[in-house]
Amino acid sequence: MIEKLNDEERAVALAGLPEWGGVAEPDGISRSFSFGNFVEAFGFMTKVALLAEKADHHPEWSNVYGRVEIMLTTHDAGGLSQRDIDLATAINALAA
Amino acid sequence: MIEKLNDEERAVALAGLPEWGGVAEPDGISRSFSFGNFVEAFGFMTKVALLAEKADHHPEWSNVYGRVEIMLTTHDAGGLSQRDIDLATAINALAA
Repeated sequence: MIEKLNDEERAVALAGLPEWGGVAEPDGISRSFSFGNFVEAFGFMTKVALLAEKADHHPEWSNVYGRVEIMLTTHDAGGLSQRDIDLATAINALAA
Repeated sequence: MIEKLNDEERAVALAGLPEWGGVAEPDGISRSFSFGNFVEAFGFMTKVALLAEKADHHPEWSNVYGRVEIMLTTHDAGGLSQRDIDLATAINALAA
């Protein structure tokens, strides 16, 4: 069973993910991405989808044309877990 | 320039799309889709993305695991237009 990060673990993890902001309900993290058009945005989403499926950890996300909003939380843990940190780190690498 | 549907056109169009509900802000239509897992949901989204890009008319949409919510509106027309009806009809055919 995956556990929610404690305050210290969370602080350390989020210090390494400055592009991601905290979300209160549900407890998680989110980041917005902007692309020049829909093809680029959906291409990015496709890469994220493959990562997510491989990790068996899926985002809550939305898209409007070139904009993608991703929110990560771990329902099984009742909040932010290492799985979210790992997926956010992998998504950052894709977007870099 | 594409125009917003008038009341009569809208009534006729929506009568043919009973699965879609009206949205007030922005003026448009929405439908929810449920799939058994993320792979099926994202596979459906990929098909919709290709249709949307071909039509040069893109959805506002979100996904959580097996659930996909699609909202269609035409910003250039300030509301629901024939483009939304055409895309909704094509999406229905995919989902059938």
